[in-house]
Amino acid sequence: MYSFKNDYSEGAHPRILDALIESNFEQIEGYGEDCYTQKAVELLKQRIGRNDIDIHLLSGGTQTNLIAISAFLRPHEAVISANTGHVLGHETGAIEATGHKIISIEVSDGKLNDSHIKIALDSHTDEHMVKPKLVYISNPTEIGSIYNKIELEQISRFCRENNLFLFMDGARLGSALCSEENDLELSDLGTMVDAFYIGGTKNGALMGEALVICNDLLKKDFRFHMKQKGALLAKGRLLGIQFLELFRDNLYFELAKHANKMAGLLRDELEKAGFRFLVNSPSNQIFPILPDRLINKLQNNYSFYVWSKVDADNSVVRLVTSWATKEDAVLAFIEDMKNP
Amino acid sequence: MYSFKNDYSEGAHPRILDALIESNFEQIEGYGEDCYTQKAVELLKQRIGRNDIDIHLLSGGTQTNLIAISAFLRPHEAVISANTGHVLGHETGAIEATGHKIISIEVSDGKLNDSHIKIALDSHTDEHMVKPKLVYISNPTEIGSIYNKIELEQISRFCRENNLFLFMDGARLGSALCSEENDLELSDLGTMVDAFYIGGTKNGALMGEALVICNDLLKKDFRFHMKQKGALLAKGRLLGIQFLELFRDNLYFELAKHANKMAGLLRDELEKAGFRFLVNSPSNQIFPILPDRLINKLQNNYSFYVWSKVDADNSVVRLVTSWATKEDAVLAFIEDMKNP
Amino acid sequence: MYSFKNDYSEGAHPRILDALIESNFEQIEGYGEDCYTQKAVELLKQRIGRNDIDIHLLSGGTQTNLIAISAFLRPHEAVISANTGHVLGHETGAIEATGHKIISIEVSDGKLNDSHIKIALDSHTDEHMVKPKLVYISNPTEIGSIYNKIELEQISRFCRENNLFLFMDGARLGSALCSEENDLELSDLGTMVDAFYIGGTKNGALMGEALVICNDLLKKDFRFHMKQKGALLAKGRLLGIQFLELFRDNLYFELAKHANKMAGLLRDELEKAGFRFLVNSPSNQIFPILPDRLINKLQNNYSFYVWSKVDADNSVVRLVTSWATKEDAVLAFIEDMKNP
Amino acid sequence: MYSFKNDYSEGAHPRILDALIESNFEQIEGYGEDCYTQKAVELLKQRIGRNDIDIHLLSGGTQTNLIAISAFLRPHEAVISANTGHVLGHETGAIEATGHKIISIEVSDGKLNDSHIKIALDSHTDEHMVKPKLVYISNPTEIGSIYNKIELEQISRFCRENNLFLFMDGARLGSALCSEENDLELSDLGTMVDAFYIGGTKNGALMGEALVICNDLLKKDFRFHMKQKGALLAKGRLLGIQFLELFRDNLYFELAKHANKMAGLLRDELEKAGFRFLVNSPSNQIFPILPDRLINKLQNNYSFYVWSKVDADNSVVRLVTSWATKEDAVLAFIEDMKNP
Repeated sequence: MYSFKNDYSEGAHPRILDALIESNFEQIEGYGEDCYTQKAVELLKQRIGRNDIDIHLLSGGTQTNLIAISAFLRPHEAVISANTGHVLGHETGAIEATGHKIISIEVSDGKLNDSHIKIALDSHTDEHMVKPKLVYISNPTEIGSIYNKIELEQISRFCRENNLFLFMDGARLGSALCSEENDLELSDLGTMVDAFYIGGTKNGALMGEALVICNDLLKKDFRFHMKQKGALLAKGRLLGIQFLELFRDNLYFELAKHANKMAGLLRDELEKAGFRFLVNSPSNQIFPILPDRLINKLQNNYSFYVWSKVDADNSVVRLVTSWATKEDAVLAFIEDMKNP
Repeated sequence: MYSFKNDYSEGAHPRILDALIESNFEQIEGYGEDCYTQKAVELLKQRIGRNDIDIHLLSGGTQTNLIAISAFLRPHEAVISANTGHVLGHETGAIEATGHKIISIEVSDGKLNDSHIKIALDSHTDEHMVKPKLVYISNPTEIGSIYNKIELEQISRFCRENNLFLFMDGARLGSALCSEENDLELSDLGTMVDAFYIGGTKNGALMGEALVICNDLLKKDFRFHMKQKGALLAKGRLLGIQFLELFRDNLYFELAKHANKMAGLLRDELEKAGFRFLVNSPSNQIFPILPDRLINKLQNNYSFYVWSKVDADNSVVRLVTSWATKEDAVLAFIEDMKNP
Repeated sequence: MYSFKNDYSEGAHPRILDALIESNFEQIEGYGEDCYTQKAVELLKQRIGRNDIDIHLLSGGTQTNLIAISAFLRPHEAVISANTGHVLGHETGAIEATGHKIISIEVSDGKLNDSHIKIALDSHTDEHMVKPKLVYISNPTEIGSIYNKIELEQISRFCRENNLFLFMDGARLGSALCSEENDLELSDLGTMVDAFYIGGTKNGALMGEALVICNDLLKKDFRFHMKQKGALLAKGRLLGIQFLELFRDNLYFELAKHANKMAGLLRDELEKAGFRFLVNSPSNQIFPILPDRLINKLQNNYSFYVWSKVDADNSVVRLVTSWATKEDAVLAFIEDMKNP
Repeated sequence: MYSFKNDYSEGAHPRILDALIESNFEQIEGYGEDCYTQKAVELLKQRIGRNDIDIHLLSGGTQTNLIAISAFLRPHEAVISANTGHVLGHETGAIEATGHKIISIEVSDGKLNDSHIKIALDSHTDEHMVKPKLVYISNPTEIGSIYNKIELEQISRFCRENNLFLFMDGARLGSALCSEENDLELSDLGTMVDAFYIGGTKNGALMGEALVICNDLLKKDFRFHMKQKGALLAKGRLLGIQFLELFRDNLYFELAKHANKMAGLLRDELEKAGFRFLVNSPSNQIFPILPDRLINKLQNNYSFYVWSKVDADNSVVRLVTSWATKEDAVLAFIEDMKNP
């Protein structure tokens, strides 16, 4: 049984484990004030091309979303999100638990644009309603689609004109930036969004998200919020060492490219076989529409999520590849798909 | 420069890193539903001697405290803690951030007893005040003292008679249970407290606390609270593998014994040298009162916290040992202390 | 200029003011422990036909909703509401500010039924999502429609079968119960819902909502929640005296009947004049669809809300009547509507 | 039985009830946007002598405290309060329920000074602790003492130098400002504190506190917070009319003077009779130390709180007078005190 269920089924890239072993007995500072974390932060600043940004290392996506959003907003301010947003339906109300409403906007492909955001602004007009203040987007989105530069510029401009913060969930950012359809760079994010994060957990780390705060207004006292929400690890080295290893050279992007390449193999062959897809998702998640009979057969050898029913005989499935996905397994899946 | 600042200066015990490497490429379930976490939980149940308890693995002490306490209490219910309690002064208001007041009781040695708790009950009498509902104790306490069986039984009985939950912060529980003065066992905790945790971060793990919920009333839906507060790691294996390794044999207790032994060496020699201590702390933290001149000299070669001034010429310092503390370093410190 | 904007444009029914004056210099207990509040509570219990219910007097609808819901739910539990629900869009995120997500269900007429609720249950399946626990309905709904006995029984049964609390916002409950289409009685509510409130603010009181808690599970320590949220008035008499006066005889229902009668006059004549309505609303709010030209003319003499555009030339308007609406004003409006 | 238990035992001053009656049938705007509220706000600005302040009318002290403080602070910021502070022990954790810790400072007379505040600052030094940000004082304090101008200036200067907000709970502000020992004016408050409130509930109104926000940083979007916490009354006129009546002339101060005068009568005669007091309280609350035998006798005809035991035979009692206290009752009490 081979799993295409998600991109966190395996442990970490071996270089990360090696780095942990090598540094293991050094006595260093706790709570993220160690030399490894500092070096990782410096490296990331170079990659993003700005020195005037703050970077904090956290353990997971939900944790990063809830701490960032609750730190950025005043009590009456709300989040705008596409209806597919991870914060809306898959984080057990983590944002609401910090006191903030999320305004859901229906979209077809996981992506928000300025006219979507305008709907939220226009329908929240006075103090009897929450005040929309932060736009939450994910890149790639939860259904694998990605934002291009023109789209992101448009949202960015609209947010600045309307005094909204723009926050990008980058749990799978590596996959977006390494997509063949991508024209964004890390440095673009540093200028276009107010805060974003670079996901490690789903790209080869044991855990870890690097939150980048670009807007000065959002920087102050951020470590207080991390501590208050239980996110300052005593052995912060665990995060620092991992990000240092991922960004010491191009490892982070190579891992993402591999994941994308594996997804691309699947996508191409499914297309050739005549199957349609829920959405264009040029990243490491694909959502082909398959006959239920085929799905059942494939499930004998492969695990993956059945996403939704399409009609009486067909369903959308989600196939996820990762830094660790074996090409042999992908080829075997393709073979089984063609000759079920 | 050798550090006695804390017990999280190094990485993890090598066996833990080995276990991570060995399991690294297995594809397993996410979010703590993997086989390693399940085995670790089963092992811990055996050690505690009860099958009817729930165990959840979390990343750190503040995270565990805030999730457990906010899950256990209704909005108007409050925590009772000794004034030294970690939740009171060293967690950036994490408990209050979940909406709950902590009632602080002045104690001299870090330990609560039933008459302390009664003070809190007697001064909270109606709906204009919070309702005391959960007693928070730490073992060892934040200043290294430990509870013996009779003391814990007394608190436990009082809490049950007064319909209070008893919660034990066990961030350094290994050190308490391996103290020469200890007469408690893991199985005693399983019957005397409503919930407690077994700290891994400060006893050889990269991170990790095993929360044990003994009282049926507190068990329901606990994983919802973990997810909502950002504590369900996608790669939950990282916690499961570590606790499995720590409790597969007696590693957890051996590590704690080593830490205590190193602290004992320091304590004995400081006593012999005529120094007094802030408090009797038979665990891995000691608080000798030293002349400031000696402190200054020692700081040339050792790092440690100066805890508080005692008088014009003397201060309390905190010396912490750990699973990784080297006996050579301890002996060198003793030598330098004797011949500054 | 006569206002049909809402049902809180005037002060209080004169009998209420008289009662305040009469009792004004009596020295009585504070915080709702006075004799008037106690008598009012007893009276309401009689009217509802149950002695085993708890009744608390609060100041307004948003306050009542947020205190009740946050008292009833654990942190990970969520509310299910029709998309028109007052808690969703017109309370500045008051429920989310207490930590709870509201799951919005699209409905056409403001009313939830069991299949709506089932949608929410079926899409919330594990600990990565909030747990739906409380169903929020309003009677009348925010667009004036009302529940009949069969509909309420169906929801009630479904909630009990699925371990959900059923909570009814009764800000305008008088108008619902006095509607010509109504077949529910106060005593039905006492058996069918877990908690509901009887709105005073919009039916002749200066302020005040009587929250009725029927389910034993929801009663404990409720006054703590009221105090914590700033809702225990020092001069609780102000609420007690008003509810006592409203329910000493049939004043409460007479006032609601008057409001409904005035709305009925408007409805009948608008129907006769050939206008359609947004929804069937047999209570004190009606939503006729009028030509924009007519709306403009009417706005010279009457104030009311223009609810939404229907097409290029027509809009829905909201006309609200109250205990204080003058029949002359209604007749004048009708005349002006017919002969603009 | 005559009550000296508190200053909210009676209803409202008759002029307030008259004003409610007179305006009763006017149709006016809801939610505090009515002409009466606007006039009241203008009047108060004149009295305070500043046009650049914001004023909001709320229903009670706890409500005002919790909304103001939670609106003013970011999540990790904390309140500093004297240990007698109302927010600390008599509001059911209302502040903590909004997520903020209160740092309690032991004082002897209910009053904070700059060295007290410095203790809190000096002991909160990094992100593992909350960040002290708002100083909460009450004038008069909860035990009747008052701040003079020099004391308030000193605190005010210290707060500005240390970037702290200064917030004054004025639930009984009338009594402070009308005390014989007072040298502060409303206009002083407008320049010395960042926000304060003028209590109506305990000085002749049915309910109502006028929150004055002087610091521009604290003004933005305040009505959102009021609505979110359930404090925007639909019939906001109820608050506007009352404050307009209280400040249309000197009624507010005349009522406070009467209360103080009645307390003064009691104080003088108790002093003459040789009794000591818990604290110097030149406002409408006094705390004489009386023999328990005398207390028991007086309790036959008068109700009041027994505050605390002093020794085996004596206790502190609290006697509160108000705008409605009858001089005859005071004289009778004095007589009974002298000839028990």
